[in-house]
Amino acid sequence: KPTIFIQPDNCCWHLWERRLNSMCSRAMASKTPVGFIGLGNMGNPMAKNLVKHGYPVVAYDIFPEACKEFQDSGAQVMDSPADVAERADRIITMLPSSPNAVEVYTGANGILKKVKKGSLLIDSSTIDPAVSKELAKAVEKMGAVFMDAPVSGGVGAARAGNLTFMVGGVEQEFDAAKELLTCMGSNVIYCGEVGTGQAAKICNNMLLAISMIGTAEAMNLGIRLGLDPKLLAKILNMSSGRCWSSDTYNPVPGVMEGVPSANNYQGGFGTTLMAKDLGLAQITAINTKTPVPFGSLAHQIYRMMCAKGYALKDFSAVFQFLREEENL
Amino acid sequence: KPTIFIQPDNCCWHLWERRLNSMCSRAMASKTPVGFIGLGNMGNPMAKNLVKHGYPVVAYDIFPEACKEFQDSGAQVMDSPADVAERADRIITMLPSSPNAVEVYTGANGILKKVKKGSLLIDSSTIDPAVSKELAKAVEKMGAVFMDAPVSGGVGAARAGNLTFMVGGVEQEFDAAKELLTCMGSNVIYCGEVGTGQAAKICNNMLLAISMIGTAEAMNLGIRLGLDPKLLAKILNMSSGRCWSSDTYNPVPGVMEGVPSANNYQGGFGTTLMAKDLGLAQITAINTKTPVPFGSLAHQIYRMMCAKGYALKDFSAVFQFLREEENL
Amino acid sequence: KPTIFIQPDNCCWHLWERRLNSMCSRAMASKTPVGFIGLGNMGNPMAKNLVKHGYPVVAYDIFPEACKEFQDSGAQVMDSPADVAERADRIITMLPSSPNAVEVYTGANGILKKVKKGSLLIDSSTIDPAVSKELAKAVEKMGAVFMDAPVSGGVGAARAGNLTFMVGGVEQEFDAAKELLTCMGSNVIYCGEVGTGQAAKICNNMLLAISMIGTAEAMNLGIRLGLDPKLLAKILNMSSGRCWSSDTYNPVPGVMEGVPSANNYQGGFGTTLMAKDLGLAQITAINTKTPVPFGSLAHQIYRMMCAKGYALKDFSAVFQFLREEENL
Amino acid sequence: KPTIFIQPDNCCWHLWERRLNSMCSRAMASKTPVGFIGLGNMGNPMAKNLVKHGYPVVAYDIFPEACKEFQDSGAQVMDSPADVAERADRIITMLPSSPNAVEVYTGANGILKKVKKGSLLIDSSTIDPAVSKELAKAVEKMGAVFMDAPVSGGVGAARAGNLTFMVGGVEQEFDAAKELLTCMGSNVIYCGEVGTGQAAKICNNMLLAISMIGTAEAMNLGIRLGLDPKLLAKILNMSSGRCWSSDTYNPVPGVMEGVPSANNYQGGFGTTLMAKDLGLAQITAINTKTPVPFGSLAHQIYRMMCAKGYALKDFSAVFQFLREEENL
Repeated sequence: KPTIFIQPDNCCWHLWERRLNSMCSRAMASKTPVGFIGLGNMGNPMAKNLVKHGYPVVAYDIFPEACKEFQDSGAQVMDSPADVAERADRIITMLPSSPNAVEVYTGANGILKKVKKGSLLIDSSTIDPAVSKELAKAVEKMGAVFMDAPVSGGVGAARAGNLTFMVGGVEQEFDAAKELLTCMGSNVIYCGEVGTGQAAKICNNMLLAISMIGTAEAMNLGIRLGLDPKLLAKILNMSSGRCWSSDTYNPVPGVMEGVPSANNYQGGFGTTLMAKDLGLAQITAINTKTPVPFGSLAHQIYRMMCAKGYALKDFSAVFQFLREEENL
Repeated sequence: KPTIFIQPDNCCWHLWERRLNSMCSRAMASKTPVGFIGLGNMGNPMAKNLVKHGYPVVAYDIFPEACKEFQDSGAQVMDSPADVAERADRIITMLPSSPNAVEVYTGANGILKKVKKGSLLIDSSTIDPAVSKELAKAVEKMGAVFMDAPVSGGVGAARAGNLTFMVGGVEQEFDAAKELLTCMGSNVIYCGEVGTGQAAKICNNMLLAISMIGTAEAMNLGIRLGLDPKLLAKILNMSSGRCWSSDTYNPVPGVMEGVPSANNYQGGFGTTLMAKDLGLAQITAINTKTPVPFGSLAHQIYRMMCAKGYALKDFSAVFQFLREEENL
Repeated sequence: KPTIFIQPDNCCWHLWERRLNSMCSRAMASKTPVGFIGLGNMGNPMAKNLVKHGYPVVAYDIFPEACKEFQDSGAQVMDSPADVAERADRIITMLPSSPNAVEVYTGANGILKKVKKGSLLIDSSTIDPAVSKELAKAVEKMGAVFMDAPVSGGVGAARAGNLTFMVGGVEQEFDAAKELLTCMGSNVIYCGEVGTGQAAKICNNMLLAISMIGTAEAMNLGIRLGLDPKLLAKILNMSSGRCWSSDTYNPVPGVMEGVPSANNYQGGFGTTLMAKDLGLAQITAINTKTPVPFGSLAHQIYRMMCAKGYALKDFSAVFQFLREEENL
Repeated sequence: KPTIFIQPDNCCWHLWERRLNSMCSRAMASKTPVGFIGLGNMGNPMAKNLVKHGYPVVAYDIFPEACKEFQDSGAQVMDSPADVAERADRIITMLPSSPNAVEVYTGANGILKKVKKGSLLIDSSTIDPAVSKELAKAVEKMGAVFMDAPVSGGVGAARAGNLTFMVGGVEQEFDAAKELLTCMGSNVIYCGEVGTGQAAKICNNMLLAISMIGTAEAMNLGIRLGLDPKLLAKILNMSSGRCWSSDTYNPVPGVMEGVPSANNYQGGFGTTLMAKDLGLAQITAINTKTPVPFGSLAHQIYRMMCAKGYALKDFSAVFQFLREEENL
């Protein structure tokens, strides 16, 4: 009988059992195919890490070139999200925005058109948690399970397989999700019910943006007041101003090595992406009537930066944006 | 000859030598009297720590009661800053604001009226660095030395003698200043020329206020989106949102022990004091034409909090200020 | 033939002609029944003004009491939006928010379930213009016409019939809409394609909020600097600071008569409503990636005011919110 | 006796009478010399308007070229402010900033070195009202009278003689001041005690900046939402969003003629000058502990604009600053 688990897809008994008790069977059936929808900058290396861990991946992307590249690496490519859902009962989606996610799940050729009962659908897109909740409802109606699992960490972390996943959904399903997510990330954190994964990510990134801008302002003001940047960073980092942006990702060129500020703000986490996440934070704040004056101003600053030529630079370039001097 | 050091002011030889090489003589004459002006909440315990370390302290405060209390503890009290300057060639000042500092140094009975050549004047007040620079110029004209050395840490740290001093002034004088400051603080950091001590403190506190408000917003938004506060704090602290306000001084009641948020925001660093420091940051930013949108908004938020009954609460009470719900 | 207009629905000839040339027939058939959905604080007096102008009104509201009250005034009440659409080919909707509007139009018993071809559907709700556009698309698919026509002016203006309507939609239909809207408003402005009515209202209210807060700040600062409020208002109003909030609706008690500030900020345009409109402005700005730093901060200020007990006060109470002094 | 007034300075009797009742004599002695210090962009045409009205002007400027140019136009030039004060008992000062004003009044060759008792000193500079008050005290000590009278209106208005003066000081002296100021301005407003002239100007300009930015945001958002700029301006101007910036000085190119936005934002009121005035507003707000969140953000926006190449453009260029689109 253990062979069932080795080649589960060929086993009729297994399929029958799955219908009886799908959740249980999923957990047992480790190496059944895994669906992956969205093969962009992040999705591509994530899906490849699943392949590396021995999972047969059936994939889809709206751009044929993305599919082609992925197919060449030995994976199977489908014609639509629905087709992926027909072949795999565990699917990961990694999409750029809420409308894309809605389309992939509920569209004319969406996952829900052919999703199997008991399937586990994990959305790693960063979207409005209210949309995650709506998707979860629609998925539940089909007898399947939805979890939101947005990531923190960029393309590099996606390649290295050390992303952080913040997961929201039914707690009993967390282990099943974790099995897959650990192939792509080094940190998989359970955050609570559906939508809380998004919430955790959004809150973290909002605080990140705020403390980054704060660090940039404090460093810039200090420098203009005659302080040496390295010394000021050292003082802040041993004091109450210390934060990740000051001690790990300092935005001032010359203070640290190996960070975007040391490389003309190339690489890292792009200003447009930060602006997008801050826009999501604003939408959740508007919907929950939560005052977020700093989150709101951070959104505006990154929006202005996008319009002033910083769209593709790392978000720590806010230092450069603020330091520009008059009469230069 | 040791008696020289016990009652140095009566020793002609000592005075003569001082004129020859005042700086050197100060360094040698460890336990000559030290002046202390400003015996408020902070100044009082600071001066007492000097006494504990064996320094004869000659003190002054504008409020007779403050002088009386200090005199009762065995120290000598003078009638004016000028009189202090007549008796001591090392003086520490700890005053509430720029105008007080200007008065104490340059007023009709100010230090400069009777300051001795070569004296070391250390101002631990938190004031506009531009005022520090002006005081330094006036002091220099009299042949004495001025250093700014504002502190971080509150009344508790002042009592325990573990304040942090950020020191600006001529580097050769730093050791002389440090000798005294280490009696009152555990950290004495040299920041650069006159005014940079103030600059370092102002920049740190501005970043502190910004990341505190950011933490309060992120925690509040997360809670409204369904996240458990402790879990959210844990996630932030292992992610890029991490900062001193989130991992050491979390503003949300129930997340940490031993911080003001666990004690109805009593104790700690008062909102009025934070508002004052942020006002100084704004003034330096205006004078140096430095954009500080977040420092500016932080100042406004703490100003509004002061007007809404939070003046005496710890500055982490911004969480409470923001969390209040509509229709309650 | 005039009877046609008195009991138009019983007239076969009329119905037949409508099918041939629905838009034209609508314009001719002045006093055919008009549907009205949403009988709240605003909708109720608006619908009554239609009745006063001789239009037979068939109405619906989700709250039975609202229907009852309206029925007592002689109008006909239906069981659902769909039933209204069955009886009237011109319908006005006045609903509190986007989800309500979506439900009334596209819900299980929504207008679109029974809408007649060529019907004119006018939405006077203040909602996201993107939602207006979606509704317009759905309405068009059914062969009917949708226009957005949000109002400016409060309950008083609704009763007096002098609201301002900002209308978006196909220009050829504007006259047909105007015929009805002039019964309820003194100003009916054509703004452009669908959604631009909402856009105009949102932009106006955003600017209104900004200049109101600006006026409150300027008046408050001036008063603290020793200026007499009436004199300051006079100076501003003859200078470049002049705005509607300073010259027509001054927020400082004692400066003007007959405005909410003269009556403890009662009546007028409630802070919650302003916060809602500013939230809409933020959503449109996020979606169009438009930087609106002041609109954003205005939203935050009104959000904080809602949480501090100002929810039901007129939005000019921001003066009171800002003027509160420390130590009071 | 009328000759006294024609050549009053040569008349001993007049001088003697002045000592008895200086204020009265000044008022009578219309065409005695008037001092003017500060012959910059504004001061030069202002002083020339005094000359045109028949006043003998004795002038001073720190820049010799400025003096030369003025001398060529027939006026008399002195070597220092003190020398001006020796020759004229009515002096107008028009200086770029607080430190300049302090120097001109209290410096080594300042006015106060030789000011005559009973002289009337009018400062038209825009400076911190707290500095005005200090200057007033110093002037009073010398037995003379000080008034602050900052102007609104730019170089054009200075040339045309239709500036607006906002005057602070003892009310009994207002007529004497008005006599001179009406030669240079069409509006002379008495605001209250010393410093209130500055206060009125600062408050007006703060509100102006806020409503200008608000207008720019509202117009920009409306345009992106599909509204025609001219139509939107028309709607705002007949609604509650109306303000001077929308109806008289619209920042959107193509909406109005004869304003800086119609001329690539050339001319008008420069962004640097607005940033300076907003900095003054911030300083007064800090000193009076007044919350001014919008004034504060306006200062930051204009500060950032200065650093992004808008320093010399009219302040309505904030529309251009905000409208820049991503990916262009």
